[in-house]
Amino acid sequence: MPTTLLKLSCPDQVGLLARISAWVAEQGGNLVEVHQFTDPQAKWFFTRMEIDTHTLRADLPTLREAFEPLAAELQAEWTLRSAESRLRVVLMVSRLGHCLADVLWRWRSGEFAFDIPMVISNHEHYRGTVEREGIPFHYLPVTEDKTSTFRKVASLWDEARADLIVLARYMQIIPPELCQKWPGRIMNIHHSFLPSFIGANPYQRAHERGVKLIGATCHYVTHDLDAGPIIDQEVIRVEHFHTVEDLVRHGRDCERIALARSLRWHLADRVLIHGNKTVVFRD
Amino acid sequence: MPTTLLKLSCPDQVGLLARISAWVAEQGGNLVEVHQFTDPQAKWFFTRMEIDTHTLRADLPTLREAFEPLAAELQAEWTLRSAESRLRVVLMVSRLGHCLADVLWRWRSGEFAFDIPMVISNHEHYRGTVEREGIPFHYLPVTEDKTSTFRKVASLWDEARADLIVLARYMQIIPPELCQKWPGRIMNIHHSFLPSFIGANPYQRAHERGVKLIGATCHYVTHDLDAGPIIDQEVIRVEHFHTVEDLVRHGRDCERIALARSLRWHLADRVLIHGNKTVVFRD
Amino acid sequence: MPTTLLKLSCPDQVGLLARISAWVAEQGGNLVEVHQFTDPQAKWFFTRMEIDTHTLRADLPTLREAFEPLAAELQAEWTLRSAESRLRVVLMVSRLGHCLADVLWRWRSGEFAFDIPMVISNHEHYRGTVEREGIPFHYLPVTEDKTSTFRKVASLWDEARADLIVLARYMQIIPPELCQKWPGRIMNIHHSFLPSFIGANPYQRAHERGVKLIGATCHYVTHDLDAGPIIDQEVIRVEHFHTVEDLVRHGRDCERIALARSLRWHLADRVLIHGNKTVVFRD
Amino acid sequence: MPTTLLKLSCPDQVGLLARISAWVAEQGGNLVEVHQFTDPQAKWFFTRMEIDTHTLRADLPTLREAFEPLAAELQAEWTLRSAESRLRVVLMVSRLGHCLADVLWRWRSGEFAFDIPMVISNHEHYRGTVEREGIPFHYLPVTEDKTSTFRKVASLWDEARADLIVLARYMQIIPPELCQKWPGRIMNIHHSFLPSFIGANPYQRAHERGVKLIGATCHYVTHDLDAGPIIDQEVIRVEHFHTVEDLVRHGRDCERIALARSLRWHLADRVLIHGNKTVVFRD
Repeated sequence: MPTTLLKLSCPDQVGLLARISAWVAEQGGNLVEVHQFTDPQAKWFFTRMEIDTHTLRADLPTLREAFEPLAAELQAEWTLRSAESRLRVVLMVSRLGHCLADVLWRWRSGEFAFDIPMVISNHEHYRGTVEREGIPFHYLPVTEDKTSTFRKVASLWDEARADLIVLARYMQIIPPELCQKWPGRIMNIHHSFLPSFIGANPYQRAHERGVKLIGATCHYVTHDLDAGPIIDQEVIRVEHFHTVEDLVRHGRDCERIALARSLRWHLADRVLIHGNKTVVFRD
Repeated sequence: MPTTLLKLSCPDQVGLLARISAWVAEQGGNLVEVHQFTDPQAKWFFTRMEIDTHTLRADLPTLREAFEPLAAELQAEWTLRSAESRLRVVLMVSRLGHCLADVLWRWRSGEFAFDIPMVISNHEHYRGTVEREGIPFHYLPVTEDKTSTFRKVASLWDEARADLIVLARYMQIIPPELCQKWPGRIMNIHHSFLPSFIGANPYQRAHERGVKLIGATCHYVTHDLDAGPIIDQEVIRVEHFHTVEDLVRHGRDCERIALARSLRWHLADRVLIHGNKTVVFRD
Repeated sequence: MPTTLLKLSCPDQVGLLARISAWVAEQGGNLVEVHQFTDPQAKWFFTRMEIDTHTLRADLPTLREAFEPLAAELQAEWTLRSAESRLRVVLMVSRLGHCLADVLWRWRSGEFAFDIPMVISNHEHYRGTVEREGIPFHYLPVTEDKTSTFRKVASLWDEARADLIVLARYMQIIPPELCQKWPGRIMNIHHSFLPSFIGANPYQRAHERGVKLIGATCHYVTHDLDAGPIIDQEVIRVEHFHTVEDLVRHGRDCERIALARSLRWHLADRVLIHGNKTVVFRD
Repeated sequence: MPTTLLKLSCPDQVGLLARISAWVAEQGGNLVEVHQFTDPQAKWFFTRMEIDTHTLRADLPTLREAFEPLAAELQAEWTLRSAESRLRVVLMVSRLGHCLADVLWRWRSGEFAFDIPMVISNHEHYRGTVEREGIPFHYLPVTEDKTSTFRKVASLWDEARADLIVLARYMQIIPPELCQKWPGRIMNIHHSFLPSFIGANPYQRAHERGVKLIGATCHYVTHDLDAGPIIDQEVIRVEHFHTVEDLVRHGRDCERIALARSLRWHLADRVLIHGNKTVVFRD
């Protein structure tokens, strides 16, 4: 069943859900799935409504226009789009290809639907893997002149008309100006259970500390390194006999799963950001 | 903040959420938390709305009367009650007291609020534990005349004006007529990951089968043994060196946690039953 | 560091570990890792010793000859081989390729070392995927004459000089005579948390039963369907809103991880079979 | 079956396991369970051997004397004791009693065997709970003169002839001199997934950070706050709708389980400390 997704957040007030769901009913829309959350501290309202598209009497542009006055009144941040519209996701990778391979496999097998207009890497290593899938591969080495490199990166993102950038183990820091230009649209998979082991070599440091669980964190990238809104985390139990290499290996499975889930939720408009936190209406 | 809980399920149709939330808004009610689920196969609608009681203009009996016409029209099964009203929970136990002890501790510490009008057991073993908490203890040995025994059990349940019966490792089969008289109101903690190892000695059989995970299942009791609607399950990893006694020990922690969560959800009207399945709006 | 693996099981008696580790010390061998387990019920002893190869004074054939008298006296089942020797693993697949893709990725990335002499399938679907990796692909449709088909399968296994057969979602029943000829050498990934939902359509049946956790099981294949020795199991929490398709999707991640772990352990001689159970010296 | 426990760690060298297990065999000892681990970085050897006591030809003092020369040669740190000897565990608690209640329940039910010579608290709150179990309760308020308070604490520990001190949510910092005097013998349950949220109010800070998993850590106390050797960790998934209070509640279950497991392992000589890390031979 084709569906239409309404994602909305706004300051809380009485009767919000009633007014918005009434508006959907007025358009003839049958609600297939509704999520709602009110943050009592922030006094903020979040909702995601999935509507049976066939029951809606108007097309998307008309519906958006019709919703605009209510949205304005509520001071809402919102999107209304077809669940079948395929978002455009640019993948960034360095030398470690397990997350890239995992996303490519899920993409090719149709586990969830999106387009990959290009893959960008600071190494040539995965050119073959990527081009074999019919996806353009851009090699952009990170030289000492990082400003120039990331100007090219930004220009490729624009060219790709990217809806989302996924740092699939891209081991370079994204400059603040790019983070600010693409808020909530750059997703990173970090190889530690944040906020533990922020920064470099988390598995090495986890091993030195002797922790009994390691993990991975998928988060949106902000100018504050490793401190952006967390989307998902995954952990696995480790023991004294695990070497750093074992932690890296176990961590790979955590990373792939946390990234795959986060990507899936983002693509289905299930992740809403408020300040430094996310509301995730999981599926 | 005191809240009022509306729990409702009914055949699905267009505009249900809008109509119900509009009704709440008409009463002045501010929705604190809303859950909704539509089962696409059963074409059945489920909702739970938590309303800020102070914003409601009428008292509970008035509200219930006001809601009755809409509920009738929707052919809904529903309850509307104060979240602060304490449900009356009768505990049943045999020889293994870990679930009893856990529920008593959570009750005494106020982790969640409910009353325990009595504990019933077919052994004297826990009389001290129970009476020390100021709770009446009824010893009802299960003799060969089970009919007579369970007539007494039923009469105690009535006397206790029980909202819920919890079989906290009560190792006796509840007769079908009691199951039918108390549908969705008898909760059992089963010491296996159902439907694995239905019936007796699940840990022994798990050990013989050499499984690598064991678990526990909390479900409502129906006349069909171990086949009632599942509320929650919990598992733990085991290894070849674990004896049956180790499985029993690990299983105890699974049982306590699955039972505690299920009980909490039931008491907060978060569990809705449809046929042989549950909808659980977790917290 | 290159290592030599001694895997041994035998009836229990006093002083076994001392005698075997003394034998290793006599050969100059430095023990890098030792696991030992005694099953008190079966009165059976299991050990795995990983020895620094450089410290051993003789080569493998000589060592095997030297160990033979002790092994015979202990009535032991044993192997002694180089950890670097690559086992030959034949993959079998039907229409669902996620486990195949996962094993291929781990193989190609060198996550653990083994050879894949061929992939056999009853569908042409994955020929491209397989041949692109430089691996021979054999299409063997399962016709009504199953005897003839599996005669060809067996002949391919022989031709491949397979150390292990992995049924990576191969949806055909292996005939008893093949199970008996390859004991402990055919590994299957079953898409349920055994012994729950033995047989066909486990996700569909899990959905109907309303379980709150689903899983996958990796086990050795015996003539008794889905009842062979379990190597590993993995589960994931599901909720009322998950459709059968969601269960299938979540299950895929369980299947891939349970299979990858089991394969890794098997290849490193970490799995010892006794009767219908496994001893797994995990890493 | 009564067993005797040998716990030993020493610098690594060739043939250690053979020599030690040969020594056990010389005493007639049948090994019931053996664990061994060599840390390749630290070049340190760890073992735990569980011996069937009935097969040993001498009593404990004689055995200890007989083992002394070998132990001295290996520069080993070691203990040899009866598994049935009950260790003396002093519990410390402040205002939050869930860990205390859990340990008391496991103690009383005989889940594992140990003595509790006394409970010490800086509040009167749990006097009833403790004395009802027949255990002496010492109220020691922490005044501004901490030195004097902890002199009394230390004197109580001595008086109790404590083998182990368990800080079961004792919210006071143990002075460095006590940490040094009782190395590896003070166990703390910390209410965060260390090294995340070291210090005060971890649940509050986890909520602010918006993490998707919270946890608890059981570790030995050293002079470096929250940085001692970790014994066990436990985590649980949380979501955006969980308040700080919900995190606290979920965290309680993590804390109780991580503490219970750690305590059990410590009492069975399954935890060996080296530097800032533990080797845990889990059961």
